Amino acid sequence: MWDTIFQAIDDQYEQMVETRRHLHRHPEVSFKEEKTAQFIIGTYKRLGLPYQCKVGGNGVIATLEGGKPGKTVALRADFDALPIQEENEVSYKSKNDGAMHACGHDGHTAALLGLAEALLPFKEDLPGTIVFLHQHAEEYAPGGAKPILETGALEHVDAVFGTHIWVNTPVGVIQASKGPFMAGADRFEIKIQGKGGHGAQPHQTKDAIVIASQLVTSLQQVVSRRVDPLKTAVLSVGTFEAGHTFNIIADSAELTGTVRTFDHEVQELIIDEMEKIIKGTCESNSADYEFNYHKGYPPVVNHETEAELILQRSHEADPSLQTEEIEPVMAGEDFAYYLLDKPGAFYFTGGQIPDHYYPHHHPKFDFDEKALNYAAKTLLQAYRSYQEQV
Amino acid sequence: MWDTIFQAIDDQYEQMVETRRHLHRHPEVSFKEEKTAQFIIGTYKRLGLPYQCKVGGNGVIATLEGGKPGKTVALRADFDALPIQEENEVSYKSKNDGAMHACGHDGHTAALLGLAEALLPFKEDLPGTIVFLHQHAEEYAPGGAKPILETGALEHVDAVFGTHIWVNTPVGVIQASKGPFMAGADRFEIKIQGKGGHGAQPHQTKDAIVIASQLVTSLQQVVSRRVDPLKTAVLSVGTFEAGHTFNIIADSAELTGTVRTFDHEVQELIIDEMEKIIKGTCESNSADYEFNYHKGYPPVVNHETEAELILQRSHEADPSLQTEEIEPVMAGEDFAYYLLDKPGAFYFTGGQIPDHYYPHHHPKFDFDEKALNYAAKTLLQAYRSYQEQV
Amino acid sequence: MWDTIFQAIDDQYEQMVETRRHLHRHPEVSFKEEKTAQFIIGTYKRLGLPYQCKVGGNGVIATLEGGKPGKTVALRADFDALPIQEENEVSYKSKNDGAMHACGHDGHTAALLGLAEALLPFKEDLPGTIVFLHQHAEEYAPGGAKPILETGALEHVDAVFGTHIWVNTPVGVIQASKGPFMAGADRFEIKIQGKGGHGAQPHQTKDAIVIASQLVTSLQQVVSRRVDPLKTAVLSVGTFEAGHTFNIIADSAELTGTVRTFDHEVQELIIDEMEKIIKGTCESNSADYEFNYHKGYPPVVNHETEAELILQRSHEADPSLQTEEIEPVMAGEDFAYYLLDKPGAFYFTGGQIPDHYYPHHHPKFDFDEKALNYAAKTLLQAYRSYQEQV
Amino acid sequence: MWDTIFQAIDDQYEQMVETRRHLHRHPEVSFKEEKTAQFIIGTYKRLGLPYQCKVGGNGVIATLEGGKPGKTVALRADFDALPIQEENEVSYKSKNDGAMHACGHDGHTAALLGLAEALLPFKEDLPGTIVFLHQHAEEYAPGGAKPILETGALEHVDAVFGTHIWVNTPVGVIQASKGPFMAGADRFEIKIQGKGGHGAQPHQTKDAIVIASQLVTSLQQVVSRRVDPLKTAVLSVGTFEAGHTFNIIADSAELTGTVRTFDHEVQELIIDEMEKIIKGTCESNSADYEFNYHKGYPPVVNHETEAELILQRSHEADPSLQTEEIEPVMAGEDFAYYLLDKPGAFYFTGGQIPDHYYPHHHPKFDFDEKALNYAAKTLLQAYRSYQEQV
Repeated sequence: MWDTIFQAIDDQYEQMVETRRHLHRHPEVSFKEEKTAQFIIGTYKRLGLPYQCKVGGNGVIATLEGGKPGKTVALRADFDALPIQEENEVSYKSKNDGAMHACGHDGHTAALLGLAEALLPFKEDLPGTIVFLHQHAEEYAPGGAKPILETGALEHVDAVFGTHIWVNTPVGVIQASKGPFMAGADRFEIKIQGKGGHGAQPHQTKDAIVIASQLVTSLQQVVSRRVDPLKTAVLSVGTFEAGHTFNIIADSAELTGTVRTFDHEVQELIIDEMEKIIKGTCESNSADYEFNYHKGYPPVVNHETEAELILQRSHEADPSLQTEEIEPVMAGEDFAYYLLDKPGAFYFTGGQIPDHYYPHHHPKFDFDEKALNYAAKTLLQAYRSYQEQV
Repeated sequence: MWDTIFQAIDDQYEQMVETRRHLHRHPEVSFKEEKTAQFIIGTYKRLGLPYQCKVGGNGVIATLEGGKPGKTVALRADFDALPIQEENEVSYKSKNDGAMHACGHDGHTAALLGLAEALLPFKEDLPGTIVFLHQHAEEYAPGGAKPILETGALEHVDAVFGTHIWVNTPVGVIQASKGPFMAGADRFEIKIQGKGGHGAQPHQTKDAIVIASQLVTSLQQVVSRRVDPLKTAVLSVGTFEAGHTFNIIADSAELTGTVRTFDHEVQELIIDEMEKIIKGTCESNSADYEFNYHKGYPPVVNHETEAELILQRSHEADPSLQTEEIEPVMAGEDFAYYLLDKPGAFYFTGGQIPDHYYPHHHPKFDFDEKALNYAAKTLLQAYRSYQEQV
Repeated sequence: MWDTIFQAIDDQYEQMVETRRHLHRHPEVSFKEEKTAQFIIGTYKRLGLPYQCKVGGNGVIATLEGGKPGKTVALRADFDALPIQEENEVSYKSKNDGAMHACGHDGHTAALLGLAEALLPFKEDLPGTIVFLHQHAEEYAPGGAKPILETGALEHVDAVFGTHIWVNTPVGVIQASKGPFMAGADRFEIKIQGKGGHGAQPHQTKDAIVIASQLVTSLQQVVSRRVDPLKTAVLSVGTFEAGHTFNIIADSAELTGTVRTFDHEVQELIIDEMEKIIKGTCESNSADYEFNYHKGYPPVVNHETEAELILQRSHEADPSLQTEEIEPVMAGEDFAYYLLDKPGAFYFTGGQIPDHYYPHHHPKFDFDEKALNYAAKTLLQAYRSYQEQV
Repeated sequence: MWDTIFQAIDDQYEQMVETRRHLHRHPEVSFKEEKTAQFIIGTYKRLGLPYQCKVGGNGVIATLEGGKPGKTVALRADFDALPIQEENEVSYKSKNDGAMHACGHDGHTAALLGLAEALLPFKEDLPGTIVFLHQHAEEYAPGGAKPILETGALEHVDAVFGTHIWVNTPVGVIQASKGPFMAGADRFEIKIQGKGGHGAQPHQTKDAIVIASQLVTSLQQVVSRRVDPLKTAVLSVGTFEAGHTFNIIADSAELTGTVRTFDHEVQELIIDEMEKIIKGTCESNSADYEFNYHKGYPPVVNHETEAELILQRSHEADPSLQTEEIEPVMAGEDFAYYLLDKPGAFYFTGGQIPDHYYPHHHPKFDFDEKALNYAAKTLLQAYRSYQEQV
């Protein structure tokens, strides 16, 4: 039976590509994904599968109950986009100004919808229950996973699996690690309050741009000098906004950024050191500040048994697949919350286009659509392995 | 006669205050001052004085021909506002979001309109011709003065006078210098082109915010180390914009700013040193850049004879006025262009509110409205002295 | 027999303390350890053991041939000091200005000499041959290990063991890792050539102190932005020398420092990025530079079998000892060279004084002398385990 | 008579060159100029002129009483050298390691000694009394002028003149200004106390080199942002010393430098802003500091009458001389103290070698020896003008 189903997924390939391109053309940023949710709902309506909508926000959960006894397993795909202006020149380029699927969530959704469609004819032969978990707002903490869990909609679920299409990984390769897999991801905002004034009279001002620039430079020391070099940490300032016009010295500057760690102690150290550097820099300049630090997603820690299912059996989904056990990566994911609650594992599905490599979140990000097929098949394989083995 | 006229200006005071507050409530930024121009035109229509509109942009020039022979003298007031959000809590607070008369141009305009109204009854007794020169776009190079001059509308003018209400100066004080009075003011734009990417993977990016912050810090050396300490120079970065969201490393960063000098050689040195620092900083980071430097207004250099008229005879306009000869100031003014073309002088009319001192271009900028009266009277006095003495 | 020998080491304790304190009072920096070598030779002369001196520099190798058949195993202790001014107030404080045993090599030497003395009576009962390997110049690349190996003096040796007294580790704890244990340690020198001049005329100079300060600040980005956050790297500038007097702008600045990595690719990346940053910084300032990068000691990679002997059997030397398998540390060691040539392992012997914790290379560094006893016993235990098991 | 005397100075030229080269070969730094003082004394002994030695330190004062009535006028030459390693390849290169006459004081001394020798035969015809004031320690505050004045040795003097050979000025040109002529010159020392440690464990340290580098960078803002751009100020860090070896993170860093201003208010502002920046930078890094600021020489302010004598009559000393009234310069001079006490003036004697221009205090500094002649003659002319005119 399983071979026939995997074949049915292959047959869905063109449909998945079309779905992905539709989603890519119409991206919606985190917490605003209303039309995308409607599109997902439309598919389940058409397939006649029961679903809940507005789960914890824009989340959509559909259910396919197999005809045979078995476990209830959720397969998760996220569907929000990023506030990036697309720079690719492709037929499916984003039509929404300032928004782009620059992380592959369009692919996750297309793969999961394609899987649902491919499985429908085999409903009666399937063991257990598949929960199609379409999650909103992965890109922006507090994210969508936590409120979905808080609704209790996953209480009856036995395990959760999910994948991320990953352009650092060649097509045909499936990667996971046992234990820590992705980093904890925090968000911060810093506002420097200087004193504005005429661009020709710096001595009557406290130049917020000079102060904030000095701060960005000094923050480099957090990782280079203050964190144990054997520990892992990233501190990135993602936005810097200050000033209204060229000849007025800026009154204030606003920075936002992210911190990534695998470890609570390092996280706390970084918060303390940031505060110290911001405070000292402002005192050097008689300026004031606000510093807000939002602890974000915890690290994604795969459950050992479920991670082994991914690593040992993914290749059964397609003979051309290889699996690799890898070191953890710095990116964060709110899939972490599911794994704090339920057994499960998260893994990468390779999607690199060798001649067009741009990292995730880049305005020219794109992935090889063959990954759609592999993502759908390996999610099903995870479901299958779990039913057979756990 | 002159005493009667100065008395008539005093009688206009409440009207001038009302006009100023109206303009303050409805600021329009440089090159967008259409409603303000309409307002000015409305006054001249009401007074029945001939005027030209759309002169070199939104400029308005009205003329009052005296009944006696004499010279043709232009009195200039600028009327554009700045892209600043007002932070004063006053009855006449700006109603236009993101725009504010934070430099006193509302006062210049109110004073000149009040002067026109006060003079009208005395038309036949006045020597020469008064040109009411209402200039748009002083705050943003290339400014309004140059295109107005280029229309030829001032060809018949013998001299030009203007004043700036100045909050660094107490009310009742008139300040000028002979020769250099205000600095040359240039504008620059720098775009740093790095490489964006995921906030957790700095090593795959060229972090434009870190590069641009380092650049702002290094640019401080232009003034501190590279310009002769006996020469005067200012380099201010007024805006810094980079990044779209907290967890994406910014692809590019855009800076704009201003350079002030009194001296061509220093100006050229600064351009060279900026280019060198930008280039080196980008090479350190394998990043690219664009650097555009727009030479702006030249220094305001008062003509000696006309500056002496201001310094020696302003007090005749009102017994409570004092005059001071001062050192040049760093601020720039496109009044400079009139003085390259015509004899004339520019001066400051003190407007400080002792308990509410905020520099020009500050969101809490305000001035003492008694300055309106002194500005109107001293402009007329300049006209009078010129007719009598030159 | 072994219990009796371990007891004999206990009996040597006071002598070891005395030796250690003597060495501590008379430190000699790397490559200048002539009197220390004489002191070591003096002991072996007294014990009547054969020795070679001037091995690869100031190295001393003594040999104790056991009466029973067995392997030849070298036990290594280094004996050079550091160019640090001691700040401890102890009876055994350094008497040599500007030199200090701030890393514990005095302890290593005292332990090995004490072990030799304790073993002598048991000579006939011992299996195999013990090589007492007293190495000079561990602290300064190219170090003493390499030239000692190059003399061929260790050709007949079957395995090499060594230990470092470690103040980050409590007394009574023995730590090692299998595989990578200590980092590769490189040295660099940077000379910035600016242009000197009068302190009051910066515009006629290229201020080497400002340039080099900017460079140190920018070099923080190598670790914070350019190395993969999942990889380990340290870049420290250890010295910064520039200028001769307060009112002369410095002509040049000289920096030296160290880079630590576990990985060839990261090492090469760092060299490239340093060069790029130095070049760009100098171009920003029209300055010149020299950059010399000396690849130093390779990482210390323990041999698995020998590391297991340490981890599994060290406690046999003394019932109060505990062993821990740890993560690798960033410090470097030229013990690395022995392990590239011979089987063996390196490990830490805990020496922390809880109330007086200062890191290695600190002017107040000191260790608990009980570590002398544990170091001597565990080195012998390594010898014993190797004879019995390999 | 005066023509004959000026001719006699010309005849001394070769002797002056020889003296200057002797002094150049044997430089002694400030407060250590004992052999130089002996050399000066030797000349006066030979000439049979009365002298005092050890005046206020190493100062030497000789007196030539003319046969005619007149005023008592001191002519001052300083004689200390700088702690610079000479890089010129000349026959008279410094023989004293680490010391160099890199500011021309050797020339001042040679000119004054030559003048004394030339004048001796004309003793009886000269009006008034010439005081040959040989001052030690001009280069290092508190300098030699102040203690010399405090001895009372100049109480009977009516006026003081002095010159500086100046390589920014062509040979044959004499420059002075009325009023402010040279800047006030202060000295500061900053010690950053971090926490040292192993170069591989930055997180256990407070890296004094990184902290001090950040400080040097931030101090650039004092001049670029905090001092009124219309005021003059220089802040230069002249020395930066930190660390003992490449692989130890430096415990502390020591900086020294100079501040130059013409204005008490700017001086006080700079001290405050420096303290604020140092404090904030150290707090950012949990480090401690010491900051010592030594107010140094006040500005050199020429007396109007005496400066006019220089500007109007110097050319009488030699027909090829030109005089120029110039803007003040940033360099400082303890000649300032004489002018606080007595009438007088200080001026520059041009000494530029066009093909070998290196600023004062540069290791390749040198001057055209024709300046010796002009310095001697103009000093005498100052004496003559003062006798005739004041």
